[in-house]
Amino acid sequence: KNPPQSIAKGVPASPGAISGVAVFSVKKAVEEVKKEGGKQIILVRPDTTPEDIEGLHVAHGILTSTGGSTSHAAVVSRGMGKACIVGCTQIDVDEKAKTFVAGKTIVKEGDIISIDGGSGEIFIGARPLTDPDWGGTFQTIMKWADSFRTLNVRANADTESDAKTARSFGAEGVGLCRTEHMFFEEERIQIVRRMILADTKEQRVEALDQLLPFQKKDFEKLFIAMGELPVTIRLLDPPLHEFLPRYDKNMKLIASQLGITEKQLQKKVKSLHEQNPMLGFRGCRLGMVYPEINEMQVKAIIQAIIAVQKKGVKVKPEIMVPVVSSDMEMVIMRELIDDTANAEMKKLGKKVSYKVGCMIELPSAALIADKLSENSDFFSFGTNDLTQTTLGFSRDDAGKFIEEYVDKKILKDNPFKTLEKESVGEIMKIALKKIRKKSDTTSVGICGEHGGDPASIAFSHKIGLDYVSCSPYRVPVARIAAAHGALKNN
Amino acid sequence: KNPPQSIAKGVPASPGAISGVAVFSVKKAVEEVKKEGGKQIILVRPDTTPEDIEGLHVAHGILTSTGGSTSHAAVVSRGMGKACIVGCTQIDVDEKAKTFVAGKTIVKEGDIISIDGGSGEIFIGARPLTDPDWGGTFQTIMKWADSFRTLNVRANADTESDAKTARSFGAEGVGLCRTEHMFFEEERIQIVRRMILADTKEQRVEALDQLLPFQKKDFEKLFIAMGELPVTIRLLDPPLHEFLPRYDKNMKLIASQLGITEKQLQKKVKSLHEQNPMLGFRGCRLGMVYPEINEMQVKAIIQAIIAVQKKGVKVKPEIMVPVVSSDMEMVIMRELIDDTANAEMKKLGKKVSYKVGCMIELPSAALIADKLSENSDFFSFGTNDLTQTTLGFSRDDAGKFIEEYVDKKILKDNPFKTLEKESVGEIMKIALKKIRKKSDTTSVGICGEHGGDPASIAFSHKIGLDYVSCSPYRVPVARIAAAHGALKNN
Repeated sequence: KNPPQSIAKGVPASPGAISGVAVFSVKKAVEEVKKEGGKQIILVRPDTTPEDIEGLHVAHGILTSTGGSTSHAAVVSRGMGKACIVGCTQIDVDEKAKTFVAGKTIVKEGDIISIDGGSGEIFIGARPLTDPDWGGTFQTIMKWADSFRTLNVRANADTESDAKTARSFGAEGVGLCRTEHMFFEEERIQIVRRMILADTKEQRVEALDQLLPFQKKDFEKLFIAMGELPVTIRLLDPPLHEFLPRYDKNMKLIASQLGITEKQLQKKVKSLHEQNPMLGFRGCRLGMVYPEINEMQVKAIIQAIIAVQKKGVKVKPEIMVPVVSSDMEMVIMRELIDDTANAEMKKLGKKVSYKVGCMIELPSAALIADKLSENSDFFSFGTNDLTQTTLGFSRDDAGKFIEEYVDKKILKDNPFKTLEKESVGEIMKIALKKIRKKSDTTSVGICGEHGGDPASIAFSHKIGLDYVSCSPYRVPVARIAAAHGALKNN
Repeated sequence: KNPPQSIAKGVPASPGAISGVAVFSVKKAVEEVKKEGGKQIILVRPDTTPEDIEGLHVAHGILTSTGGSTSHAAVVSRGMGKACIVGCTQIDVDEKAKTFVAGKTIVKEGDIISIDGGSGEIFIGARPLTDPDWGGTFQTIMKWADSFRTLNVRANADTESDAKTARSFGAEGVGLCRTEHMFFEEERIQIVRRMILADTKEQRVEALDQLLPFQKKDFEKLFIAMGELPVTIRLLDPPLHEFLPRYDKNMKLIASQLGITEKQLQKKVKSLHEQNPMLGFRGCRLGMVYPEINEMQVKAIIQAIIAVQKKGVKVKPEIMVPVVSSDMEMVIMRELIDDTANAEMKKLGKKVSYKVGCMIELPSAALIADKLSENSDFFSFGTNDLTQTTLGFSRDDAGKFIEEYVDKKILKDNPFKTLEKESVGEIMKIALKKIRKKSDTTSVGICGEHGGDPASIAFSHKIGLDYVSCSPYRVPVARIAAAHGALKNN
């Protein structure tokens, strides 16, 4: 019997194969998994946004018709270790009708489909699946790899469960904990929204005080899961409008939840709207205007450290400042972090140690890395954003032409998959030289999607980075790639 | 008698003072100026977009409640030499009600107001105005300046009238002609839209063939106005969606004009929508996918050169490639330009000479400038975009926090007004070094807003650029600043 033909092919975004019922909304996805005897589900969407996080959490596989290998759906799926296909332009998703069309095939909500996140293929009906084998041979190869590699491999982990997965795959620390992912959970998002809508600093602080215990608890769990290994916590990164509903969606409901009029909410959403959010009011820029947000985060980190140390857990916390573009930002952030931490330690009567680091995700940060190192104990290249700004490619949009660029050999690879060496790699080398000139011992790593890409890992080894950090499920591949890099250099 | 108090103050975006009736829509603005005995008008808008160009053309002054000193309204007004205030957050513009509110004052459509584009102040009623004096003293000072300066001063000019103004102020060439501004005029925008909506290359070429005579005619006028001085023509730069209506506006009308359904038009607008258009599908990226667009532009340039040469006009045409991020793009574009030009010259039986240059507006272009120089006769720094990408600041959005950055001395100046030297200036120096290493005689300049800013002009002189290019009305200031720069170095 011939193997069944795939009905469409998209961009393979997160490996693994899964069969399940097609579901076209987050709401339906949540309902389905809550049902007694609920089936495995594949969430099918035109694209996903941070608001859809609950749906991604419960889904067993994800399929989108737009976006590239670093789109929201792709990044989140890889982090969760779920099979995912994105940018499948061969299918036409109709959210209203709850169907998608691939050529002559129409798939309705409830129909069973299978997706292969390794090949990007979509099939009708269930397919036979095999469980992965993490046993003897796998462990032996990993041991061999570890005996050669010099590059450390950390994982990007936002939750206790991520951290546990990462450790089980041999991660040597958390290289990136994105604190904003903690902001989206149901109980918290309301508080976050109240914080954003606050008219005064007092109102903002009040909301932040309510968020603090949540963040503290999350950090405690993360610290306990990672133990003596370093944990790098990135302060709030995205622009605030990411936490508000999109212009046309759910406006009424959310306004009523917040106790304001729909018009008030619309006005705020409009005032926060940005033409180019990637280059907007985000990262430490938020801290320059609303320092109380970062102060809350630092308090939560210090409280969590003290709490787990009381339980006898050793911790290596690292606080990381995102979207740095100027010397003075790091001066101000260092002072904010140290002052807040000192005050908190004094209040709680405990001394703890932590590091403060700086992300290099803008060309300007690379070009002034020597000055930044005066206030930074470590550096981490945010290679996704550094690629976006150096090449001037929007990760969310460039999917439309990057394929053509690769086909025509204008670019060797998709620069969001494999580090582009001519310019992005060049600016990393410029930064590294400036940092090393100041100090030989400052730890420098990369976090972001490139940390899991073998060619990019080899490059990281070659230029002399200390670590890479990638999705938990990519840690084994990263360990092998780091060994390959080391062997090649001998 | 005390001088009248201003009712509000915004960002002074283009100098000059004007009194006129407040008008809240482009439509009304056009009606008003067409009226017999129509009054001078001040266009009041929340912001302006390229679609509003007709309104900006007819208005005598412009006032917007949002945007910074390099927003659309600001840049266009400076180019046109019209008084303009932007980002006046103290007024609340209600487009529907056709009013704006400043404190307790309500201004209705038809009310007379005065604006001072030099101070940013808005007044109720007419104010006494004085005409500027371009006479004897002015000319003497200009001559002094020219005797010292070594930096050339060109102007950004998109039209014959711009070019004439520029020459009258002593511009030594056109450093930037933005060809897309020629696409927005009433007759043409329909053809441009048909080109964008084309499903096949044939349909696209058909629309482009209709555009060609318009572009050719425009170039002819520009060449005649500038004569023996160099004229730099930038190939199409903005993303295509800028030529389509915005999502909610005029969709129905424009669809009917194009002979398609509203749904078809909406679908196209949606498919072209970008999260971060600044980092999107624009500049020479368009040429990589739709080479026929640039081919048409090159044909129009060559035909125009031949036509004006027949009239005895000497020309120095320069064709400039925007948004270059990789070596191969310039290889492909050089080939496209030369092949198209050669074919056209052969067809018309005339040989003409032209230069081909490369814009450096992305950090990647700066970092590979040595490679790019193999296919570039000249370079021009697009310092607006280079500032956006190097610092990761969106020009359209950063207004929200840049003021705070300047107040808190995180930044010395607004980097869109005065070149930021630490990183943007640094990457310019890196590029310049790479270019000069390959050839001492390659001409390198800057175009964009910084070309008219005295501090940025001094910096340009210091690092050894050959020319700056600025809005026509800023040419005198640039000539003086270039002299200051030269005198300081002595």
